[in-house]
Amino acid sequence: MHKGKAYLECLPREKTCKLWQDKLTAAGYFAKPPVEIVPVAQALGRVTAACTYAKQSVPHYNGSAMDGIAVRAQDTFGATETNPVQLTLLKNGQPFIAGGCYIVDTGDLLPTDTNAVIMIEDVHFAGNTAEIIAAATPWQHIRIIGEDIVANEMVLPEHHVITPADIAALLAAGLEHVAVIAKPKVTVIPTGTELVARAQDLKPGAILDVNSHMLCAAVATWGGEPIRHDIVPDNYELIKQAVERSLATSDMVITNAGTSAGTEDFTSRILAELGEVLAHGVAIKPGKPVILALCKGKPVIGLPGYPVSAMLTAELFVRDVLYQRQKLSIPEPEQVPAVLARQLYSHVGVEEFVRVSVGTIQGKTVAAPLSRGAGMISSLIKAQGMIAVGETSPGLPAGAPVQVRLFNRHQSDTLLAVGSHDLAIDVLGVFLKRQANKVLTAANVGSMGGIMAVRNNEAHIAGIHMLDDKSGQYNIPFVNKYLAQGTWQLVRLARREQGLMVLPGNPKHITGMPDLVREDITYVNRQRGSGTRMLLDYLLSKHGLACNAIAGYEKEVSTHMAVAATIVAGAADTGMGIRAAAKALDLEFIPVSHECYDIILNFPPDDEIAEIIITILQSPEFRQEVERLGGYDLAEAGKVLAVNNMQLGE
Amino acid sequence: MHKGKAYLECLPREKTCKLWQDKLTAAGYFAKPPVEIVPVAQALGRVTAACTYAKQSVPHYNGSAMDGIAVRAQDTFGATETNPVQLTLLKNGQPFIAGGCYIVDTGDLLPTDTNAVIMIEDVHFAGNTAEIIAAATPWQHIRIIGEDIVANEMVLPEHHVITPADIAALLAAGLEHVAVIAKPKVTVIPTGTELVARAQDLKPGAILDVNSHMLCAAVATWGGEPIRHDIVPDNYELIKQAVERSLATSDMVITNAGTSAGTEDFTSRILAELGEVLAHGVAIKPGKPVILALCKGKPVIGLPGYPVSAMLTAELFVRDVLYQRQKLSIPEPEQVPAVLARQLYSHVGVEEFVRVSVGTIQGKTVAAPLSRGAGMISSLIKAQGMIAVGETSPGLPAGAPVQVRLFNRHQSDTLLAVGSHDLAIDVLGVFLKRQANKVLTAANVGSMGGIMAVRNNEAHIAGIHMLDDKSGQYNIPFVNKYLAQGTWQLVRLARREQGLMVLPGNPKHITGMPDLVREDITYVNRQRGSGTRMLLDYLLSKHGLACNAIAGYEKEVSTHMAVAATIVAGAADTGMGIRAAAKALDLEFIPVSHECYDIILNFPPDDEIAEIIITILQSPEFRQEVERLGGYDLAEAGKVLAVNNMQLGE
Repeated sequence: MHKGKAYLECLPREKTCKLWQDKLTAAGYFAKPPVEIVPVAQALGRVTAACTYAKQSVPHYNGSAMDGIAVRAQDTFGATETNPVQLTLLKNGQPFIAGGCYIVDTGDLLPTDTNAVIMIEDVHFAGNTAEIIAAATPWQHIRIIGEDIVANEMVLPEHHVITPADIAALLAAGLEHVAVIAKPKVTVIPTGTELVARAQDLKPGAILDVNSHMLCAAVATWGGEPIRHDIVPDNYELIKQAVERSLATSDMVITNAGTSAGTEDFTSRILAELGEVLAHGVAIKPGKPVILALCKGKPVIGLPGYPVSAMLTAELFVRDVLYQRQKLSIPEPEQVPAVLARQLYSHVGVEEFVRVSVGTIQGKTVAAPLSRGAGMISSLIKAQGMIAVGETSPGLPAGAPVQVRLFNRHQSDTLLAVGSHDLAIDVLGVFLKRQANKVLTAANVGSMGGIMAVRNNEAHIAGIHMLDDKSGQYNIPFVNKYLAQGTWQLVRLARREQGLMVLPGNPKHITGMPDLVREDITYVNRQRGSGTRMLLDYLLSKHGLACNAIAGYEKEVSTHMAVAATIVAGAADTGMGIRAAAKALDLEFIPVSHECYDIILNFPPDDEIAEIIITILQSPEFRQEVERLGGYDLAEAGKVLAVNNMQLGE
Repeated sequence: MHKGKAYLECLPREKTCKLWQDKLTAAGYFAKPPVEIVPVAQALGRVTAACTYAKQSVPHYNGSAMDGIAVRAQDTFGATETNPVQLTLLKNGQPFIAGGCYIVDTGDLLPTDTNAVIMIEDVHFAGNTAEIIAAATPWQHIRIIGEDIVANEMVLPEHHVITPADIAALLAAGLEHVAVIAKPKVTVIPTGTELVARAQDLKPGAILDVNSHMLCAAVATWGGEPIRHDIVPDNYELIKQAVERSLATSDMVITNAGTSAGTEDFTSRILAELGEVLAHGVAIKPGKPVILALCKGKPVIGLPGYPVSAMLTAELFVRDVLYQRQKLSIPEPEQVPAVLARQLYSHVGVEEFVRVSVGTIQGKTVAAPLSRGAGMISSLIKAQGMIAVGETSPGLPAGAPVQVRLFNRHQSDTLLAVGSHDLAIDVLGVFLKRQANKVLTAANVGSMGGIMAVRNNEAHIAGIHMLDDKSGQYNIPFVNKYLAQGTWQLVRLARREQGLMVLPGNPKHITGMPDLVREDITYVNRQRGSGTRMLLDYLLSKHGLACNAIAGYEKEVSTHMAVAATIVAGAADTGMGIRAAAKALDLEFIPVSHECYDIILNFPPDDEIAEIIITILQSPEFRQEVERLGGYDLAEAGKVLAVNNMQLGE
């Protein structure tokens, strides 16, 4: 109702970027950035504003390049082993006489009238004379003035990023100050009546302003000097004042709308009054409501309120402008080809940007899409890269080839854990980082999802806890059934308690499974394919309970912690999960079963990492750390339960 | 005499690195680095000291994910287009009644007793009722508490470098402060009686302390917090005091010896008194006199005094220690294969590190060794990469395959200019950076060297000025003779004046070529193969003068500016060169000839860069800039004089 109607026509991203670039160029924004003079010793990483020229030569005098004697070369001509030449040792400061020499150390000023140095090793001293047995070439072993840098020569070109060695060169060339391009000042204005600055002021319905800090940090990363404005409530006049004042003192202004209705419309009206709105709405997802404006010759960008949208639009419309303003070349992102781990739907008409985990599994590089909500900060911190799904695409099937834009260059260090969620996986991640410098990223898709991910070589590690009700055996029957191919091991992680979580004091007096069908009880469930869901269904059938008699059976969340959080929030009375999750959120726990939580290690035979993981699982440090979470028995951790060495295609 | 004798046995680099690493590890230096607590908003780029856990869930309440109405799902069951359901609009704060609903905006707290949101687009409002034509699924369009981050869940692992998004996540999770690893404090102590701190205090024989600033900047680049100590003269007690005091307040101490004798010996004796000297002397060049010590559990490194040695040994023995201390992974340098442009001699028994220019010419990546003197700061700023020549190698022939360790990842942007030196080449470099973002690096090897470099595809650009005394023609006869193969163009750069440079006032009254053989005149020459040398020899023979009658004919330097600097230094009375060099150093200039300075552009046919260069040469801006240097006529600049399109092998 509130949103959408105010959008100008949504342009595609590429056209918008070009328009943005062209308008800023035409406005002269990139032509003559402000310059400041800084001491050379503090100029690390700064960009030279102009070519810099040497004020003095380096070296600034003719000096000895060796320890030895300084001589006049012509006095040494004819010296041989059989016909040595004796030179008279002169004192420092004593005027030169033909056939004389001076003792010099490396770096010493060459005495007047000498023109060569003979190394100390080649001189035989006897009393007041120095005997040599070979002639010196004129100018040998002398560092002549300007040999390194000549006065007036260019030391650094313009628009050059100053390195530690450049600092040495500038100083040596007699420059104590250098003109550099001023860091662009960027004011970030968080707007929204629902925003609060500090966690202690949070009330339900209020939103903590985290974006302004994130955006300020991003601006700093891109070479700008961020200035965080205080939160401005949704008030036309106040927002206008804030933007106007910021424009006077900044090179760029960013407003970051709250997620509530209204703010964004204010912003676009205000920017149209203060200058020209070039775009309001871009055909991208997330980030569609971005506003690009040019006010008083400066870019003003209205970024949307959700963190993922704000970050993406900042990357698209702020970063390169800052680089260009600073005359820095825009870093080319590293791209890697990968296959998509899961099907990805997309909207035709918008270009979608999806953050992904990236890992190379059994030689295949896989991109696993993360949670796509524009509000999911966790997707920002878990992502190693991003893929773009074009405007005309309705989506991509699992296994589709994609180009991943990597956020940093060490994606090979990432291990993907896909499957059932357990807090012990997080602990394993900590140990892996510590012992093998590997980053573990976890996608929680349930046990069956984990098995399928291993089957498709889309996971290094899969946590599973699946009860075969016929054999009463955990996990082994399932891996044998579904994973006949491949090279993997099934390894015990823990026996753990499953139970019903309830609020402290157990206000609804829940004692076990039969209570779940009570009319006054609401339940929060786990998704199909998860081991906990399988256990629930098994226990319900064992107790002769019907699932459609449970209020909330259809409400699915995807982790133990989410079940616990739902109960804490009062959105359900109970749900099934592990004791550690209940303990983490101070819930009471009614045990209903024990189960085996094992992990599949999907690595080539004899892979070092698989060995390291097993060693970690067997270590007392890891076991203690996990058992401390509550409800775990790690006596068998690291025990190999099954091994498969069937190469695909064999 | 002074140096060398104090060295312990020189170990090879690899063994030294391992010893250094092992000793520091054994001393617990990497185990528990100091930790500090910083505000999250200021933690960009810092390294988490421990795993961080969420203090609150994100979102922290169940909220609407849409603008719409909040309902109880069961009240909507059965709604269809033909059988719509009417719900009663309730006011905010009014208690829920069955069949009621509330208007909610995105982000609003979900009203008590509702459990689903229906999008505004799907609601028909009529007076006090909201009509819907489809049932709501329980929990639809609701962001439940903890959907993004659950309280007590791990937000960031330990030893993680904090990004802008991480800042958002930590703040959202209720953390206002975070424990990070303290930046290692590194005190850099410049030692040496000959050192002065400021250029204005320089006297012949004194050396400006530039290394301490370079090393401080390098420490900052590697994440440390540098502390620059004042210069300490060569005094045993003073150096000892400085090291002891610095040890008390720092995590690492670097001493940087002056290049004069003595300092380095003091350092090694002092460090042996304060702790254990692990290595004094490593079998590398440059940088052999490095000292590695462990004092009071902290690394103390004595770096040699020459800038290139200091930088190399810091890269080898300081950088990785700082990374490890901060729990940062050590960045892998990018390596590219290349062929060596010139023969490279090396000493057996030491591993030599040679800085190189790198460029890709006609598809072939070439590494051109830069000037190897340990004192050559210019080699530090010109280098794009480094090659190592192993201990057992006596050197490498031209064309040998080498691995180049790149200093940054954009080496493809480098153009190599090899050949005769002219100041106009530097100006061309400025225009190329500005217009095509290409870095031009120049190696001055004379005209013939330039032609050979083009022939071997080791230069993109070669400046030449070679007079064919038979035809009286410049340059064209030589390219036709030597460059029958290849795809290149010869392009006019300038006509320029060559002449004799003399001190202001022309104290020796030099008027022309015949004066060169006067007994009281000393000359500074250019190297064989340079156009200026060819011109000299041509003019000498024309005047019937014998070269061996010229004092200093054998003293060769490799640029016009070096000729000028030699005269300014009083090391010669005159030398031949271009007017611009004389003007740059305020020398007088006696014109003796005009000549044509042209450049060979060695690019594939229709290469964009060749076109850009020609356009630059033809532009009034470039012409004015060069003519301003003095002695140039650029009327024909950019004129194509000869073209060759003969592919190799055709």
